[in-house]
Amino acid sequence: MSYEFKMIRRVEFADTDMAGIVHFSNFFRMMEVAEHAFFRSLGFSIHGPDPAGTTGWPRASATCDYFRPLRFEDEVEIHLLVAEVRSRSIRYEFVFRKPNESGEIARGKVATVFAGVEKATGKLAARPIPEEIRAKITAAPAELLSAGSAKQNP
Amino acid sequence: MSYEFKMIRRVEFADTDMAGIVHFSNFFRMMEVAEHAFFRSLGFSIHGPDPAGTTGWPRASATCDYFRPLRFEDEVEIHLLVAEVRSRSIRYEFVFRKPNESGEIARGKVATVFAGVEKATGKLAARPIPEEIRAKITAAPAELLSAGSAKQNP
Amino acid sequence: MSYEFKMIRRVEFADTDMAGIVHFSNFFRMMEVAEHAFFRSLGFSIHGPDPAGTTGWPRASATCDYFRPLRFEDEVEIHLLVAEVRSRSIRYEFVFRKPNESGEIARGKVATVFAGVEKATGKLAARPIPEEIRAKITAAPAELLSAGSAKQNP
Amino acid sequence: MSYEFKMIRRVEFADTDMAGIVHFSNFFRMMEVAEHAFFRSLGFSIHGPDPAGTTGWPRASATCDYFRPLRFEDEVEIHLLVAEVRSRSIRYEFVFRKPNESGEIARGKVATVFAGVEKATGKLAARPIPEEIRAKITAAPAELLSAGSAKQNP
Repeated sequence: MSYEFKMIRRVEFADTDMAGIVHFSNFFRMMEVAEHAFFRSLGFSIHGPDPAGTTGWPRASATCDYFRPLRFEDEVEIHLLVAEVRSRSIRYEFVFRKPNESGEIARGKVATVFAGVEKATGKLAARPIPEEIRAKITAAPAELLSAGSAKQNP
Repeated sequence: MSYEFKMIRRVEFADTDMAGIVHFSNFFRMMEVAEHAFFRSLGFSIHGPDPAGTTGWPRASATCDYFRPLRFEDEVEIHLLVAEVRSRSIRYEFVFRKPNESGEIARGKVATVFAGVEKATGKLAARPIPEEIRAKITAAPAELLSAGSAKQNP
Repeated sequence: MSYEFKMIRRVEFADTDMAGIVHFSNFFRMMEVAEHAFFRSLGFSIHGPDPAGTTGWPRASATCDYFRPLRFEDEVEIHLLVAEVRSRSIRYEFVFRKPNESGEIARGKVATVFAGVEKATGKLAARPIPEEIRAKITAAPAELLSAGSAKQNP
Repeated sequence: MSYEFKMIRRVEFADTDMAGIVHFSNFFRMMEVAEHAFFRSLGFSIHGPDPAGTTGWPRASATCDYFRPLRFEDEVEIHLLVAEVRSRSIRYEFVFRKPNESGEIARGKVATVFAGVEKATGKLAARPIPEEIRAKITAAPAELLSAGSAKQNP
C-alpha cells in the first residue's frame, strides 16, 4: 500500500518565462509528471489496463501556492502524497523543495476522477477505480499531509 | 474603475492532450491571457511602466475547478472578475463558458503580487501597486463573485 | 481555389522564455495555428469529415529560419502560403512579419501528410487527401514562394 | 574536445496532443534539453559565465524530419552531434531513437548563435564564442553526421 513518491526534476529552459522563472502553469505539469511516475512505480500506466485507451483521469480541481521562484537548471524535488482515495477519485498533495534546502518552493493539490468513455453517448463519465489499483494505493498518514500544517509564507 | 473583462478564445491543437481535451494546466495559461488583455484594455502592460522590465506580477496562488471538458476548436469565453485589490496584490476570479451555452466549463482563481527586483539583493520583493494602476481597478460587486455562490457540479 | 491565408496573433506571456523572447519552438505552434485557421476558412476542420476522428495530418518535416526576435505583446502577422499539393501531402510556407514593419521576423516550412488509422493494424498510414479538400486548395504562384527568393539575413 | 552527447527522456503526458502522439513542436524542446545537458556535461551553463545573464544562444534555424511517432511514456534516446563550430555560432544535429530499437524516430538540426545584449542599443548582437567554450567543443567526424547519409523514409 503506497502513499508517497519522490522524484527529482531539473528545470528546463522552455519551462521558464520572460520573468526568468518557471511559469506558474508549469508547476501543474510537474505535479502530473510525479503522479504518472508514481503510477509507473506501482506497475500501472495512468491510462490503465484498457487497451482501447478509453479510460483516463480527468481533473476535478487543481491548486498551487507559490512561495519561492524556481529558475533554469534548478533541481527540484517533487514529493507526492496521497491525501484521499475514494471509490471514483483520488486526491493528491505535492510539495516542491530544492534538494538540500529547507523551506518549500510551492505546494499543490490535485483531485482527479477515474473516468471512461460511455459507448452509448460518447461522453466521459466517472467509474469505480479498478480494484487492482485501489489495492495498491492508500492515503498518507495525516501528519504527513498539509491539512492542519501551518502554511509557509513567502 | 474596472472590475471585469471578457474575451473569446479558440482552443488550439497544441492546447490539447492525448485524452482529446484541453490539458488542465492550460486553463491557467488562459486565465493569464485574460489578465493581460484586461491590463491592456486599461492602457497598461502587465510589465508596468518600468522600462527596465524589473517589475512584474508573480503568482501567490492559483486554483481551478473543472466541470466540463474543452475540445479542439471550441470557442471559450473567459470572464475575468477582480475579487480584491490590496496595496500589493490583486485577486482575480475567472469563469470559463462556451458562448451561447448555459453552464460553466471551469472556474479559477489567481492571487498575484506586484513585485520588483531589489537592487541591493537582486531578489524579487513585493511592492505597492502603482497608484495609476490602483486608480483604475476595483473589486467587482459581491454578487458577481463566486464566493457564496453554489458551485456547479459536473 | 485558395493558396494563402493571413492572420494576426499577439504574443502571450507563456510564449516567452527567460531570454525575454518567444521560444523558438513556439514559432512551429504559430504555423500550426495559421494552418488550422486556413482550413476553417475553407469550411473544414483539420480533423476532416471523419466523425471517428481517426484521420489527421501528421508532420513529415518542419523548418524555421529566425531573423529577428518576437517579444511579449508584439503583434505578429502570420502569412501562410501553399507551396505544393500532392495526392497525400501538402507543403506550406509561412512568413512572420510585424504589421506595418518591413522585414521578416521568421520564415518557416511544414510538410504534412494526410493519414488515417488502419483498422487492421492500428497504425497510422498515409491516405489520399479527400477530393473535397483538394478541390479547394492549390499551390501559390511561384513568385509568392520563398523558393528562389533571397533569404534575409539577421 | 567533445562532439556528442546522449540522453534518455521519457515522453510526458503534456508532450502529447489529441492525436495521441508527441506534438511536433516538442521535438524542438527535446533538442534544446539535450543541448543544455551537453553544456552542463562540459561544466558550462547555456547562459555562460556572465552573471548578468545578458548573453545567450538565440536560434538562427531549426529543422526536424519526422519518421515515426512517439507516444506517452515512450523512452526516447536523444543523440546530439556537433556538426560545426564557427567563431560565433554552432550547428548541432540530433537523432531520436527508441532504446533497443533500430530505425530513427526523427532527425533534427539547430543552428545557434552566441549573442549578447549591446549596452549602447539594448539589442542582441552576435559575439565571438568564449574561448573556454570553444576549447571544449569540436565538430563530430563526418561519418557520424547526417550529411551524406541516406535519410530514412517513414
